[in-house]
Amino acid sequence: MSNNKQKFAIIINIGDELLAGHTVNTNATWMSLELQNIGVKVLRHSVIADEKEAIESALDSVEHNISYVFITGGLGPTEDDRTKAVITSYFGGDLVFSDDVYKEVLEFFKKRGRTPSGSNRSQAIIPTNAKRIVNVMGTASGMIFDKDETKYFVMPGVPYEMKSMMSRDILPMLATKNRLLEHELQINTFALPESEIADRIANELSDELFNIKIGYYPSVKGITIRLLARDSILVKRVQAKIVDMFGKHVFSLKGEALEEVFVRQCIERNLSISCAESCTGGRISDMITSVAGSSMVLNEAYITYSNEAKQRLLEVPSEILDEYGAVSTNTVSAMLEGLYKRTQADICLAASGIAGPDGGTEEKPVGLVYIGVRYRNIVKVKKLTYDRGRDKNKEYAARAVLNLARLMLIE
Amino acid sequence: MSNNKQKFAIIINIGDELLAGHTVNTNATWMSLELQNIGVKVLRHSVIADEKEAIESALDSVEHNISYVFITGGLGPTEDDRTKAVITSYFGGDLVFSDDVYKEVLEFFKKRGRTPSGSNRSQAIIPTNAKRIVNVMGTASGMIFDKDETKYFVMPGVPYEMKSMMSRDILPMLATKNRLLEHELQINTFALPESEIADRIANELSDELFNIKIGYYPSVKGITIRLLARDSILVKRVQAKIVDMFGKHVFSLKGEALEEVFVRQCIERNLSISCAESCTGGRISDMITSVAGSSMVLNEAYITYSNEAKQRLLEVPSEILDEYGAVSTNTVSAMLEGLYKRTQADICLAASGIAGPDGGTEEKPVGLVYIGVRYRNIVKVKKLTYDRGRDKNKEYAARAVLNLARLMLIE
Repeated sequence: MSNNKQKFAIIINIGDELLAGHTVNTNATWMSLELQNIGVKVLRHSVIADEKEAIESALDSVEHNISYVFITGGLGPTEDDRTKAVITSYFGGDLVFSDDVYKEVLEFFKKRGRTPSGSNRSQAIIPTNAKRIVNVMGTASGMIFDKDETKYFVMPGVPYEMKSMMSRDILPMLATKNRLLEHELQINTFALPESEIADRIANELSDELFNIKIGYYPSVKGITIRLLARDSILVKRVQAKIVDMFGKHVFSLKGEALEEVFVRQCIERNLSISCAESCTGGRISDMITSVAGSSMVLNEAYITYSNEAKQRLLEVPSEILDEYGAVSTNTVSAMLEGLYKRTQADICLAASGIAGPDGGTEEKPVGLVYIGVRYRNIVKVKKLTYDRGRDKNKEYAARAVLNLARLMLIE
Repeated sequence: MSNNKQKFAIIINIGDELLAGHTVNTNATWMSLELQNIGVKVLRHSVIADEKEAIESALDSVEHNISYVFITGGLGPTEDDRTKAVITSYFGGDLVFSDDVYKEVLEFFKKRGRTPSGSNRSQAIIPTNAKRIVNVMGTASGMIFDKDETKYFVMPGVPYEMKSMMSRDILPMLATKNRLLEHELQINTFALPESEIADRIANELSDELFNIKIGYYPSVKGITIRLLARDSILVKRVQAKIVDMFGKHVFSLKGEALEEVFVRQCIERNLSISCAESCTGGRISDMITSVAGSSMVLNEAYITYSNEAKQRLLEVPSEILDEYGAVSTNTVSAMLEGLYKRTQADICLAASGIAGPDGGTEEKPVGLVYIGVRYRNIVKVKKLTYDRGRDKNKEYAARAVLNLARLMLIE
């Protein structure tokens, strides 16, 4: 049943909320990654309005070389959802009410102790010309239309309903038909600028780069280097050379987040963690506790937002706050000492800075942050400047402190 | 100079990282919202590969009725970025090295204490057939190509560089040319199911809905109802009726997040906040401190992840933990009492639950969480079940506690 020809796909997301900028299109991202993982290449994402002409025009523009078209959105119970009727009619079918499907819808509500409303009845209306995909997470059915050599998968736009249909039904079905033709590997780095990475790779690996595609993806999470080639041995060799080149700045080879790597380090070494957060306001603890299993290593953490709280909870001396200010090496060092005294945690993390948008001065601008780690009687404090708005400033500071801790553990 | 004809736009995002599912396309979302705000209607988003054929085919498919085409991505310093060359040549121009632009690039690096690398030189190569948009946040210039009745704006894919060009140059230029033809209002609700909202509106407002478009947008942040019509008085009247219908479940009419509304309530009433977080692990505090000005109302917060920390820091009696478990009404009530004793905060918030993926039992499944608020000697604790994976479970619990506090403040 396997077929070694590269299969191409396009993704069509239907929804006025996407075009109006109210909803971020995470569905296309998730689907693309899953399809790439089973060797299906996505050539295009199209986001279109929930309108007859737009849907028909998108279906008209599907090229002959496309094997799979993934369509999401517009299947809800409300009147602004038109996808089902338009697609059914486009492929020459009719819509009929199904007693069996309606029984399933009623059952779904009963199980959750809710009563269906009138508009839920429309979810038992299904096309005569499609295979049905059962929705275990909701009440809108999915559909598969076949036309010439192309399969059209139509799913709800609610992310967890779409993901459930993809994971349970569609991806396993496609995975058996496709073989991976290109091999992808990645290298996840933190605290190196993109141009420095790109220049070193271009200079030092120039001979090996003819048959390999390299991409650089910078974000607040670090810079990811992606390698793609048909020759799996070449990809592995180039990955190994790049890892050598950047050494400890490489924190993962499989797309893990910094917090996952750091929490795993701590679990493996049986090291307890605690945090004293000022400007990050809970972000460091939130990242750590977002990793499953983190309860094995984190017992408690403190958000000391005011100077008074820093003094009372962490015993930061008022002289230090008066002389150096809350945003200083001295205060962060004192926070770490106080946190250690209080918790005896093997690894103490702290951050204090100016998240913005206000509160900056000439000397201490918005985006300035001091991060610190205490591990085995060694205290390291670093000064950073990163001004990308309050939320990103918090996130970068939190990631920088996790990275500093990660480095101290491997040194 | 104003022109009352509706202007249409499409957005083309170029980048293999988008098609491979490595990066979420937040650029299209942000641009769409900004364009809608100045009365430009976005008809389509297309995400395409950083390849000559794909870029040319996307340019070929721009319809005659499109006034503006916004293109992002592929302008970086590295070799996988091809946009500039392909578009310049598509419109019949050449690329030339500009000494003036190179001086700017060097200046940009100098200001930041960094040295440019060889690949940065390519960013001083600019088209002969485009107007240049200065990039104050980076080194890749933006470009404006004019062709027939259509303007093509080409910008970097790095979100803050694109946003800076749009906000400083492009949006002000377009805003003076366009007048708003459709009026949009919204209603942000929390803790009501979509079908219930849609049914009540369909039943009670059926007469008024002919000339108005209603959309329902559910997410972990709540359900947003959007109203769009040409008649501004009608939109306002329908908005007011819907607000009456759902009363206190409406938390904003302008797209604010729950945390913004809650923090503003506290600032206005001069009420202090503190948190005791178990399963949310810092998320509640992180949300609160993501609001600028929150330092006026939040001094300190505690993450008591282990039972031992709940006993030591919040004086939760061991008998309660033994008899009812950490995930129970009794424990959350005790956390609130202990937190109040310690901080004397006017509003105390707490949450304890099972975030998953492990740790669930038949009786206490993953996704079960107790949230509680103490305000003016009144303690309310609510039991919730929400299982959408660890991260969403934390977020929903955090939002639910903020919403409970908001409701207690307005009652």
